[in-house]
This record gives sequence, structure tokens and C-alpha cells, in this order.
Amino acid sequence: MIQFYAPEIESTGILPESDSAHCCRVLRMKAGDEVIVVDGKGKRFRCVIMEAHPKHTSVEIVSEELVPSHWGVRITLAVAPTKNMDRMEWLLEKAVEIGVDRIVFLKCARSERKVVKLDRLEKVMVSAMKQSLKGVLPELEEMSDFRGFVSSDFGDAVKFMGYCSSDYPRKEFVKEYPRHTDVVILIGPEGDFSPEEVEAAVAGGFVPVTFGESRLRTETAALYGVTAVHVMNQC
Amino acid sequence: MIQFYAPEIESTGILPESDSAHCCRVLRMKAGDEVIVVDGKGKRFRCVIMEAHPKHTSVEIVSEELVPSHWGVRITLAVAPTKNMDRMEWLLEKAVEIGVDRIVFLKCARSERKVVKLDRLEKVMVSAMKQSLKGVLPELEEMSDFRGFVSSDFGDAVKFMGYCSSDYPRKEFVKEYPRHTDVVILIGPEGDFSPEEVEAAVAGGFVPVTFGESRLRTETAALYGVTAVHVMNQC
Repeated sequence: MIQFYAPEIESTGILPESDSAHCCRVLRMKAGDEVIVVDGKGKRFRCVIMEAHPKHTSVEIVSEELVPSHWGVRITLAVAPTKNMDRMEWLLEKAVEIGVDRIVFLKCARSERKVVKLDRLEKVMVSAMKQSLKGVLPELEEMSDFRGFVSSDFGDAVKFMGYCSSDYPRKEFVKEYPRHTDVVILIGPEGDFSPEEVEAAVAGGFVPVTFGESRLRTETAALYGVTAVHVMNQC
Repeated sequence: MIQFYAPEIESTGILPESDSAHCCRVLRMKAGDEVIVVDGKGKRFRCVIMEAHPKHTSVEIVSEELVPSHWGVRITLAVAPTKNMDRMEWLLEKAVEIGVDRIVFLKCARSERKVVKLDRLEKVMVSAMKQSLKGVLPELEEMSDFRGFVSSDFGDAVKFMGYCSSDYPRKEFVKEYPRHTDVVILIGPEGDFSPEEVEAAVAGGFVPVTFGESRLRTETAALYGVTAVHVMNQC
């Protein structure tokens, strides 16, 4: 099954340029052909092409279904972006495939990267959402100040801080996460969180944890945390 | 901590060219400096540099420790290589970071790639082993014929086949895997396993499973399987 993405499909009935081009130029679809479209907000539509235009293909909605996230908890991943953005693109692709609700980039004392461009990352996420047949596009946020983030309100979510310096007492994430609970996972930069950041996070209710005995790269630890939540909630 | 890799360190006391260059040129280490070296077979050595040579640095072993794999079970991952080898390099890096024992490439009926060059992949694995502070380099094998592989002997390991066609009854991997047991995980090509391959695998004792409700790419499913084994054994 191929999914197209048109956030405004309900109001406009038009596929955006990139999807129109893919539909008409690559897949050579024509008026009368049926297409599946998601709006990234939890709805999937069965549509029929009215006009196959490479820039603005128009469709008529035949039916719709709700396709909410299937994992039942809200997963927030906050990560200090790596110097090499390929690693972040990879992480976002995989996190969206496996399932995440909100991704936040953190500006940390030891971050090697203080700026991230979201355009390219959003494309990667949209592509992963389509490919993994999801109907909800996770939230992606601009770089956030670390202290502001750890002191903000996450409702009833449990909060964990992974990849923090080994001189601080850490628990095992897998043993600490209460199944079927909303969760916020913090992952630090290559240079690790600073002692002040660890203190601020702990003061904000974050529990320092490890993901096992291996020393994992930033993006590996982040995906391990997201995957572990899914695995534990499937058990 | 920086680990160097010298498979023959015990017999030769010499760091290979790549590690010698890193040690002398990049890190500018000199005679008398201490280095940590792993042999990829489960031993880590504390050594002192005798001659800092950019091509064949010689060291003297001061002490050694055994560093076996810490996850306690043997994890075999057999995957049909993707057309895009970057995805396989990424998978091997992450699987080695998280922890795997044996990686086999499968030649499947619908494989888009029938040949893999192992040199580059071995470099990626060595780098991931060093980075994640492991002392054992996982086995990496040439492309194997699918039928030969699924009919071979895996001792007491439980055998699963992920990413197989949805028209075949599948169980949930997370519910089926008996904790703390050696495991073999098969992951199919982008085009999925052929019905004949699914039959052959089932005949060989492989249980068709899913890793959840998301449709995952080949490399994502493979890493999900490996991560799930670690998470379940940590619970």
C-alpha cells in the first residue's frame, strides 16, 4: 500500500506538489485511479483522482477512517542533536517508523550543535510516516533550552534521563519504566550532560537511567529508549 | 576511554596500521604512554607503547582482563541485504553497539542485492565495537543461501522469522521469545520472503512473527528484533 500525505486534504481536496509529482510522474496515476491519503493528524482517506496534475492533483474523498497511534502511550523524545546531522535524520526516520509522539532538540552546555534546520528533518519524518503506514505525524520542535525543557509540565508522564555521566547513581530504564505510562526520555550530547544539567533534570523529576551495559552513541541510546518502551508495553 | 583493536596483539605486540596511525598521528601518543587494546575475541589489555610508529606501533602488555559479551545469550541476526548498503552499514553499527553475536546475509528469492562486500562492513563493526567498549567482534558471514541457512543446526536456539507476508499466520515476537534463550532472527528483503521461503523456514522450525503493528523497513525490523531481545532479558 502507498500512502500520500496531504495535511489539508479535507479542506482542499488537493495533494501537495511533492505528492502530486510522485503520484502523476513516478506512479503515472490518472483521473479515476484510487489513492490512499493521510492527513498526519490521525485520519486516512480513500480518494479518487479527479485531475492528475503534477503540481496540484485534485481528489475526491470516498471514505475515511481514524488511524490514531497504536501504542497507547505518549512518547516524548528530547535529544541533544549530534554534530553529524545524518545521525539525527537516521534517528528521526527510525523513531517515526517504530513510533514516537513528540521530538524535541535540546540545547545543552556541551552540545556540539546549537542549531538545527527542521525542513529536511520534517521530510524524513513524513516519508517514514508514510512508509510505516501511520496516520499521525509526530510533533517536531525547534531547539529548546535545556533548563526550560526539564522544568516544564509533562502531566502524568514518567521522566527519564538517559546517557548521563556514570559518576551519578543511575537506575536501569527497563526496570524503572512503569508499563503503559506516558514517558519523556532525555538523551544528552556526545560530550554528555554537564553536572549542572544532571542536577537541574533531577530537580525537575527526571530519573537518571542506563539502557544496559553498552556505551551507546547519542542516536543509538535515543532509539533504544523508544524501542524499549514499545517492547515493554507489548509484553 | 579509547580502545584500540589488534586481533593479534598477544602474539605480535603490534597495533595494525590503521590503529597505529590513529594512535600516533591523530592522538599523538608517544613511547611510554598507556593504551587500552582489545583483541575482538573477548580480551582487553592494558599496554604501554614501546615504539610509537604510524604504521606498526609496538606495545608491551601490562595486564589483561576478560571482557565477554555481557548479554548472556547468543543472538544471531540473518538479514536479506537492502539494495542501499548504507542501510546495512547503519544496521551493523547499531546492532554491534547494542549487542549481537553473529550476522549473516541471506540470499533470498526477492533480494534486490545478491552480493555484499564485507570489507567496509567489517570496518564499521570494528569501529562500533571499539566505540561501545566491547571486547568481542561479532561474526560476519558471506552471503548465505536461504534454504541452506534455515535448515542448518542452531543448537537450542529459538528461531524466529520476522517481516514475513501478512497472509501467513504470525505471532508476536515479544510474546513468543522465551527470556534468556539463544535466538536466531530472520529478516526478509524489501520484497518480503517468497511463500516458498516462508514454508522452508517454518519446516526448519522458524516461527513467523511480527514486531508490532508498524510496517518496518528491513533494517529497522532487524534492529528492533535485536533490541527487543536485550530489553526482554533485562526485564
